[in-house]
Amino acid sequence: MKVGILCTGDEILTGKTVNTNYSHIAKRLVEYGFEVNWGAIVGDQHEAIHQAMELAASISDAVIVNGGLGPTLDDLTQEVAANVAGAELELNQEWLDRIADWYHSRDRVMPDNNRKQALLPAGSELINNPIGTACGFALDIHGVRFFFTPGVPKELYMMLDREILPRLQNLRGVSLHTHIKRFHSFGIGESRADKMLAQAAQMAGNAQVKLGFQSHYPQLETKLVANTTTQDAPEMMGPIEEEIRNCLGNFIVSEDAQTLEGNICQILRESGTSVSIVEMHTAGLINSRLHACDELGGLVKAGVVSQTMGDLHGLFQLPNEEWTQTAVAKQVAILASRQNNSTYGLSVLTERYVEEGEQDGVEIHLGISGNGEAQYRKSRLPGSPSWTRLGAVELGLDFLRRSLAGLPMHELVDFEQH
Amino acid sequence: MKVGILCTGDEILTGKTVNTNYSHIAKRLVEYGFEVNWGAIVGDQHEAIHQAMELAASISDAVIVNGGLGPTLDDLTQEVAANVAGAELELNQEWLDRIADWYHSRDRVMPDNNRKQALLPAGSELINNPIGTACGFALDIHGVRFFFTPGVPKELYMMLDREILPRLQNLRGVSLHTHIKRFHSFGIGESRADKMLAQAAQMAGNAQVKLGFQSHYPQLETKLVANTTTQDAPEMMGPIEEEIRNCLGNFIVSEDAQTLEGNICQILRESGTSVSIVEMHTAGLINSRLHACDELGGLVKAGVVSQTMGDLHGLFQLPNEEWTQTAVAKQVAILASRQNNSTYGLSVLTERYVEEGEQDGVEIHLGISGNGEAQYRKSRLPGSPSWTRLGAVELGLDFLRRSLAGLPMHELVDFEQH
Repeated sequence: MKVGILCTGDEILTGKTVNTNYSHIAKRLVEYGFEVNWGAIVGDQHEAIHQAMELAASISDAVIVNGGLGPTLDDLTQEVAANVAGAELELNQEWLDRIADWYHSRDRVMPDNNRKQALLPAGSELINNPIGTACGFALDIHGVRFFFTPGVPKELYMMLDREILPRLQNLRGVSLHTHIKRFHSFGIGESRADKMLAQAAQMAGNAQVKLGFQSHYPQLETKLVANTTTQDAPEMMGPIEEEIRNCLGNFIVSEDAQTLEGNICQILRESGTSVSIVEMHTAGLINSRLHACDELGGLVKAGVVSQTMGDLHGLFQLPNEEWTQTAVAKQVAILASRQNNSTYGLSVLTERYVEEGEQDGVEIHLGISGNGEAQYRKSRLPGSPSWTRLGAVELGLDFLRRSLAGLPMHELVDFEQH
Repeated sequence: MKVGILCTGDEILTGKTVNTNYSHIAKRLVEYGFEVNWGAIVGDQHEAIHQAMELAASISDAVIVNGGLGPTLDDLTQEVAANVAGAELELNQEWLDRIADWYHSRDRVMPDNNRKQALLPAGSELINNPIGTACGFALDIHGVRFFFTPGVPKELYMMLDREILPRLQNLRGVSLHTHIKRFHSFGIGESRADKMLAQAAQMAGNAQVKLGFQSHYPQLETKLVANTTTQDAPEMMGPIEEEIRNCLGNFIVSEDAQTLEGNICQILRESGTSVSIVEMHTAGLINSRLHACDELGGLVKAGVVSQTMGDLHGLFQLPNEEWTQTAVAKQVAILASRQNNSTYGLSVLTERYVEEGEQDGVEIHLGISGNGEAQYRKSRLPGSPSWTRLGAVELGLDFLRRSLAGLPMHELVDFEQH
């Protein structure tokens, strides 16, 4: 079933706002087994919206329209939809009451122009918006079902999942159940993962499950999607998931909506432990990602963000300026946990190198302390400053995850110089 | 002059990649005084691209096509363009030599499929891509000029500015000169700025300069754009810029491509000074933004990222657990600069509050030390954790900027509880 997406609004058309609503709608449709066949962007102009709706009706089996349902004069969607469908605008009393209640419950008086949001083309099906004053609606235009959604992302996302996707599935006739499983890994590139997962891909193919990759350096997402007419997708996917877990093994940093840093905080929380982090030349991104996951505090104690070895020597009063980086990385990890009274200390000390005849890159010195002793790992990542910074941050977080999970600490990752 | 934008590629159509190329192209076109009248997204399918090109030719005066110029089989743009224009594909020897040279200079052999990138519809004008193997080209289709650009953002951005926009300006006949001036401010909301700049708006209107706002909390961008047939835009804009500077005054944190944190680093660099930052409950974002601007190190010394007052008491060995937050903020700023041997110390200590009958929010304690003394400022920001975190980070950076620039340190901002 071919679904078109029509986004309206001057802010989108002129590039002021990046069109993340489009990509969200498209991604969800594809996950639910629909084919997205056309996307269009038009401004807040009657003629352009009219033309786009006519076109969409001529090439798609269903259309999702986003935006233009607000209370102001430049919100034209209902009006144009009525026009294209040859219907009159009618007041939907149910929705008008809802808006009035919404204002009433906040001790405010409904402005007159909100009434406009309850005017729908005759014959429309009201679609509930539980968190806003713009209702959605569905309407047949030239025999094609159009679903109209508000431009506010939070409202769109909720209505898409709760209201629109189930209706599209009904429309398709076949009642498909969608199951999605995601694995996030660090250290295996897309082409190697492709080879490693040949067996899983074959199993998926046989079970009519889609196996795909999405690389967002430095992580790789491996996604399984099943659209089945029966309820047995979880059983069908189970063995394939197991195969993926076996292949990617220690490189899987989290699954589904969980993040690497979220996974680390969960282990810390469950084990009643804590960590302090000292990082150098990573713009504080390791502390930043972990602290953002630790809203209540207590898991990630105070950390240090620095730029030079000299800063660290001064700050931690290291006895000897000529210490090797290995010794500094270990000692700083130990001192960080001691000063902050945390279970573990992690140091991720990055230095840029430029070498004749070689690609520039960074040398990373990783230290982790716990139970009175410190471990060390060294790594070299070639690449530009911004590229290697991302790599160093991920390597540091992964070093901590592996330590907490009792996994091997020295497995090379694909981005490293071997 | 109406310009349409056609984006091709399955990754864009299915929402895997957010379409930032579209918004970049649209924004630049609008800045250069063109009207964007239509955007379309189609996948890597001959029929859909064909249809979209036909449509674009029927409604726009010029069209920018993005994507599909790569060496692989699913890159169809040249082929479809030739088809729609009724032209044959011809080998462009000039570009083939360029690709071969490109590989040769890297000691690599050109793969056969790169030859495909030098096949252009007969009658095309070659458009140089100085940093990639996909050339751009321009072609008349049904009397409308089409400009074809590669999907790699860096290549697109460069070619758009250097090659496409000048050609579009020629096509428009009127040779317009575009001048853009941007002011980034923190602390004045869009509606207040709108009122404050009424005089500037009137001056801009008379001089046929566009004055606009773009709010990306917590900053507000005020943009002046002039498209003039003469070279006198700078003189024309000068007095309006002065008026804006007078009105927004101390709230302007940077201009044009400069950022707030970049501005701070520039002041530190020029005055040969340095700063150390201690932050609490801001996920390390103040250190992170400043460290990212200080690639060479030396301006932003080691900083501390923490979550609780207890952590700070332990770390800085503060003598009394019952110190007020004011005293802690000042003392921590002093100790941070002393320990790190930096000119200034900044503390930004945030605590969440939940109060009966009031909106939740944060209380922020700001301390700054320098020249042997410390200043303090307190602030309350209502809002959700993610919202107030952004506000606290900006407030902290702005406190530092004001101190370094010798500006008043206690001016309230619009987001604060007054």
